[in-house]
Amino acid sequence: MSSTSFSDWLQARVEQTETVLDQSLPPVSQEPARLHEAMRYSVLGGGKRVRAALVYAAGEAALQGKPMAAAQLKALELAAAAVELIHAYSLVHDDLPCMDDDKLRRGRPTTHVQFDEACAMLAGDALQPLAFELLAQMPIAPALIVQAITQLAQAAGSAGMAGGQAIDCESVGIALDRDQLQEMHSMKTGAMLQASVLLGGIVAGASSTVRNGLEEYAQAVGLAFQVVDDILDVTADTATLGKTAGKDAADNKPTYVSILGMDGSRELLGALNEQAQLALRPLGPAAARLMQLADYIVGRNH
Amino acid sequence: MSSTSFSDWLQARVEQTETVLDQSLPPVSQEPARLHEAMRYSVLGGGKRVRAALVYAAGEAALQGKPMAAAQLKALELAAAAVELIHAYSLVHDDLPCMDDDKLRRGRPTTHVQFDEACAMLAGDALQPLAFELLAQMPIAPALIVQAITQLAQAAGSAGMAGGQAIDCESVGIALDRDQLQEMHSMKTGAMLQASVLLGGIVAGASSTVRNGLEEYAQAVGLAFQVVDDILDVTADTATLGKTAGKDAADNKPTYVSILGMDGSRELLGALNEQAQLALRPLGPAAARLMQLADYIVGRNH
Repeated sequence: MSSTSFSDWLQARVEQTETVLDQSLPPVSQEPARLHEAMRYSVLGGGKRVRAALVYAAGEAALQGKPMAAAQLKALELAAAAVELIHAYSLVHDDLPCMDDDKLRRGRPTTHVQFDEACAMLAGDALQPLAFELLAQMPIAPALIVQAITQLAQAAGSAGMAGGQAIDCESVGIALDRDQLQEMHSMKTGAMLQASVLLGGIVAGASSTVRNGLEEYAQAVGLAFQVVDDILDVTADTATLGKTAGKDAADNKPTYVSILGMDGSRELLGALNEQAQLALRPLGPAAARLMQLADYIVGRNH
Repeated sequence: MSSTSFSDWLQARVEQTETVLDQSLPPVSQEPARLHEAMRYSVLGGGKRVRAALVYAAGEAALQGKPMAAAQLKALELAAAAVELIHAYSLVHDDLPCMDDDKLRRGRPTTHVQFDEACAMLAGDALQPLAFELLAQMPIAPALIVQAITQLAQAAGSAGMAGGQAIDCESVGIALDRDQLQEMHSMKTGAMLQASVLLGGIVAGASSTVRNGLEEYAQAVGLAFQVVDDILDVTADTATLGKTAGKDAADNKPTYVSILGMDGSRELLGALNEQAQLALRPLGPAAARLMQLADYIVGRNH
């Protein structure tokens, strides 16, 4: 690992991701202009880029100290952009009136408020295949590309993100127990966080030991991410969050805080972070950025 | 080509596609059950499967009389299912209230009427990655899989189907000229029909001569498909169509019939079929099913 501080490293990854996304999204000068504008509005200029950072950090971990080839770097950039495209599309659809009906996202009007519902839906619909197109462009062995695409497709589909979303929709006002809540979140949020980590590993040619470590790490971090989200929904204000605070409680949605209480949630968080750090032990110093990312995810305030 | 009649051949492809789709879609016994039910409802038990048939026929044409290997057949089956999944998802989203607000599809209530809007949107969202997952499973050279995925992603995205959908949405009540209408349709419907043909070619390892012929054929057939749709919207009744007839005129949408008149549209249709048949000449007798499919598309009454 280089001596760059974590916050400088993260900032550099955020900017790198923004640049690649900007170059990968179709320009507004090209028809259909309004759709392209909505796609760019939904993706660019915001977001913590945690998923992209996980791709880069996992790639670094998988290399185990070997220098990164230019083609591997390019592939990591495309994979990082791909997971952010899927994440962005899911937010656009999730904010629609027929879903969460949210007006505010990243401190700005949501896509359907800024444009219109049809345009927002189509923007999301078009972002999804773009993610697969970017993976198909990675300058690495085609067999690895196919592995990466399978990973992303499964994480985005009915056994992953879209499936978790569906359970979430159906569970409004229903008392889920802790296992059901965990299952829902591991699909809705965890699957894509896990895919981000595994994509980084696939691109960098991770050994099976490294892959196992990455998988275990990703599971713990994915869950931790959601526990933090639930805590912040209660403790943070709308301005800090950039989205409507207190919304889960108002919607009568089950959360970790509603099931475990605030203290219980914070305890779980500590345990999950420890689990994530432990999983990385076999990977040695190359996993330092992943360790810092787990601390960052657990400690974030928005 | 075997001596099987075209209608028997087509019927066999429809059944084959239905079987592969049924096996590829997640079972209702698996959670999230309601989402899986909505996905299956949206895909199975209907549809002309024209896109799937194009995949099979193009594969046969590309083989140029060579026997089809079991792996190639399996790959064609997966590719045929993939294009039908993308097509089905696009219909589900297109029927939503924020888009065309249609209540009837293939003679049954549309997915959002049968389930609800959120469920329909998520079913569409989950069908899309499943299509890419199926392509990634094809038992052919990974480099060909990557080509196929690029093709499908571009056809489904903002330069293809979703883009054409967006132009369509924005052009309600606006007088498009013939070039603009053609551009819109070549994206909205043509791109996926073309991708179906090209996927068949890719899977069967088409030579560049064959690919050129397939591309030219696909362009003509894609356009012809839309002209027929526009004619049927005027001449057929709702029962025959299985969807609401006369809807384009009622929505004040520009169509070939509104721009060229009925006679002009029928003339264009004849010219496009001729163009499609001519494009296949260099491919010889292996292209017989594709020729018959063009005749079928031009002559269909629903």
